[in-house]
Amino acid sequence: MPDTSSARLIATLTERLGARHVRADAEALAPHLVESRGLYRGHALALVEPGSTAEVAFTVAACAQARVPVTAQGGNTGLVGGGVPFGGIVLSLNRLNRLRAVDPLGASMTVEAGMILADVQAAAEEAGMLFPLSWAAEGTARIGGGIATNAGGLAVLAYGNARDLVLGLEVVLADGRVWNGLKALRKNNAGYDLKHAFIGSEGTLGIITAATLKLFPRVLSRSVGFVGLPSARAALALFERLRAGADRGLTAFEYIPRFGLEMVLRHGIDVRAPLEGQHAAYALVELSSPRPGADTRSELEALLAEAMEAGLVEDATIGGSAAQDAALWRLREMLPEVQKAEGGSIKHDVSLPLSRLADFLEEAEAACLAAMPGLRPCPFGHFGDGNIHFNLTQPIGMDKAAFLAEWARFNDIVHGIVERMDGSIAAEHGVGLIKRDELARTADPVGLDLMRRLKAALDPHDLLNPGKVVALSNDPPPALPV
Amino acid sequence: MPDTSSARLIATLTERLGARHVRADAEALAPHLVESRGLYRGHALALVEPGSTAEVAFTVAACAQARVPVTAQGGNTGLVGGGVPFGGIVLSLNRLNRLRAVDPLGASMTVEAGMILADVQAAAEEAGMLFPLSWAAEGTARIGGGIATNAGGLAVLAYGNARDLVLGLEVVLADGRVWNGLKALRKNNAGYDLKHAFIGSEGTLGIITAATLKLFPRVLSRSVGFVGLPSARAALALFERLRAGADRGLTAFEYIPRFGLEMVLRHGIDVRAPLEGQHAAYALVELSSPRPGADTRSELEALLAEAMEAGLVEDATIGGSAAQDAALWRLREMLPEVQKAEGGSIKHDVSLPLSRLADFLEEAEAACLAAMPGLRPCPFGHFGDGNIHFNLTQPIGMDKAAFLAEWARFNDIVHGIVERMDGSIAAEHGVGLIKRDELARTADPVGLDLMRRLKAALDPHDLLNPGKVVALSNDPPPALPV
Repeated sequence: MPDTSSARLIATLTERLGARHVRADAEALAPHLVESRGLYRGHALALVEPGSTAEVAFTVAACAQARVPVTAQGGNTGLVGGGVPFGGIVLSLNRLNRLRAVDPLGASMTVEAGMILADVQAAAEEAGMLFPLSWAAEGTARIGGGIATNAGGLAVLAYGNARDLVLGLEVVLADGRVWNGLKALRKNNAGYDLKHAFIGSEGTLGIITAATLKLFPRVLSRSVGFVGLPSARAALALFERLRAGADRGLTAFEYIPRFGLEMVLRHGIDVRAPLEGQHAAYALVELSSPRPGADTRSELEALLAEAMEAGLVEDATIGGSAAQDAALWRLREMLPEVQKAEGGSIKHDVSLPLSRLADFLEEAEAACLAAMPGLRPCPFGHFGDGNIHFNLTQPIGMDKAAFLAEWARFNDIVHGIVERMDGSIAAEHGVGLIKRDELARTADPVGLDLMRRLKAALDPHDLLNPGKVVALSNDPPPALPV
Repeated sequence: MPDTSSARLIATLTERLGARHVRADAEALAPHLVESRGLYRGHALALVEPGSTAEVAFTVAACAQARVPVTAQGGNTGLVGGGVPFGGIVLSLNRLNRLRAVDPLGASMTVEAGMILADVQAAAEEAGMLFPLSWAAEGTARIGGGIATNAGGLAVLAYGNARDLVLGLEVVLADGRVWNGLKALRKNNAGYDLKHAFIGSEGTLGIITAATLKLFPRVLSRSVGFVGLPSARAALALFERLRAGADRGLTAFEYIPRFGLEMVLRHGIDVRAPLEGQHAAYALVELSSPRPGADTRSELEALLAEAMEAGLVEDATIGGSAAQDAALWRLREMLPEVQKAEGGSIKHDVSLPLSRLADFLEEAEAACLAAMPGLRPCPFGHFGDGNIHFNLTQPIGMDKAAFLAEWARFNDIVHGIVERMDGSIAAEHGVGLIKRDELARTADPVGLDLMRRLKAALDPHDLLNPGKVVALSNDPPPALPV
């Protein structure tokens, strides 16, 4: 693209949006060019911050006309490089942050894409309802990004992924037209269900500007347990038992390996050991209920007592107050952070059929240890969803860079086992850049061709977040993890 | 298409599948050419019944090469003309009826598209689990058709539509290639989620040959109540109260108007009045739970007693046994059948935001009565899903044909109100032929263009169930309701 044409585009956008909202200076651009963990660093012509759907549409239409790529960004908290621009403009949705409507009786709310997730949760609560989507970065992540990446998080077991919480969408298409699909309906078979094409497409098929979300009755009783277990296999048996006994009242089943809890207790601030002895594995379990008068604590006690009698559980504690529950949750939530204190970590975000979880953990740990004795596996996370963050902490004393240089080798080992067990190598964080080429290598070729056809049909000039998820051209990856 | 070319196609298919499974005689074709209510009558070259996914792929590839349309059919129980062929072949999935795998621990099962829905339910139960999808025609409907139409039915309130119960799909594409997307994962963000493009597309984008389904813990306690209410508005208030009090334990909330119950008691066999007095409206409510020891009867009693104290409920009864529960359900299930005894019925399958349900019922009934005094509205159905079968029974003594000739006029009235309240004119039965042109007139034009682009991308020669859902050509509708 000749410079004059991009200069003309910037002038056009500046005229419509105002100079404050079209910034080409390095200071304004800097926070929008890097992946949140620093894995990628991109570049862009300008940061454009529209204040309305109409301004987003104007911006995208102008870019389409000039054939300039558009990378949409919310809170830029993604972990796969999906929001990093490599040329073109960064389109920030952050000024589109209004609550458009809330309907407690209809159990729905309509929000703009740039609303911070925690603000969405708070608005639901103010209306006497619950919006359950939740993850660590909820104080900075934006709802539009969460939907565009079909985010998972801490409440998937009972409420589903972001996709399951969306009733309708408003989307700006690659040519700048606006699709208004903001329906608040539980049933709608009026033609193809278009919203699903955009949810989880990571900004490559359209730009989500607003969403109508499902709300749920507020939780009135909650109880959290921390359980010591002899093995991952016992965790699976415990999960099966709690699922049968509590059904959708089981709102969390998180897995923590012994080494994970050790790291938390060693490096975490304001933490103490939840149980007296040590166990091979731990599970954080939560029961909750919106029913007035529900007594989830007694229920959880009874379920865990039965599991202990059955020999599945070695020890368990139940938080007796909201503060104690929060302290137990903190042991799980600190895990990503405390790993940094032990050196380099090679990460995998994988999912398995629930029935293969224990097989996977046993086999993948053994294979990784065989490949590098001294390695310290820390597989943790959303066990009840079949989703494990299979992280590998470097051997003590090894050079960090030398360890991280082995990333691809461990990818091959871990993802190979995942593939063989019919799992997914991209469970909740998405594909972005980091898994794009691996997806292309490992996906069903017919499925991959379908993805390319969808991309070509909805974004024929490859202008929306080009090079992410599925690459259309033969370009090499624009950057490698650093 | 010249006759020689279609003769060659039939010969090719016969050679591969055997003469028993490629039938061009009128007797074999007859049941596959009509909509289940007789609204449409089509025509086809042949009925083709492949016995495996490979044979489906072969058939579709041969048709693609010969440019011969393919209309996929399961149990042919649809209500919108979606499965009726107008030329080309009818591809019956009914021989693909194997249970491929069941995994109770993983809470999933993989079935072929032609398995009868009731057999899928039974296979889940045999494995100690629940597959909740259920509707009147479950003894003849096939699971593939249920998924292809994103069927709703009687268990949507707690478990969702067919779409929500699908983890993975196997699909034969328009060119005969097979996409294997049979994953049994709760989380999978490895690229675009392709299964959603095929679910609810009514066989126009691909032919579903197998599916991996979600299973749930079996229900161990169930209680059914039949409630007399002063108005639709009271029904809405009762629904809100039960949703807050029972959450996902509320597994049904069905609406029956006074005239509906009258018809059931007048024409139904082996029925008796559930309550002593008469009420403006009725609700059938069901609480169920998979928790061992759950006492849904006491819960339901308490909830209904509170609602009565609050003045929402005029009278209520609770079935004390499985047989009594079934008798209460029968009052609801007979409704579609007994309407026939009162003459012609003009039907609408609409959905509304939950908070607009009472407004809609009041306004639509008044508008229809104003348009034709003596008309007898019978709006009933899945109130808790916002889905009303807004049916209109003819005035007493009016000529049936003359009444049915008013179909389009009442469509305009009812659907006009639905549109204004941001509802859907096609809630659970789909679009097929019967609503295709109305969808084209009323849908968001950008959304409609997206649908056409999807169709063109996945079926560029318009060979899969052509003319259904979205019409690509300017052909007039191939048939009108009779």
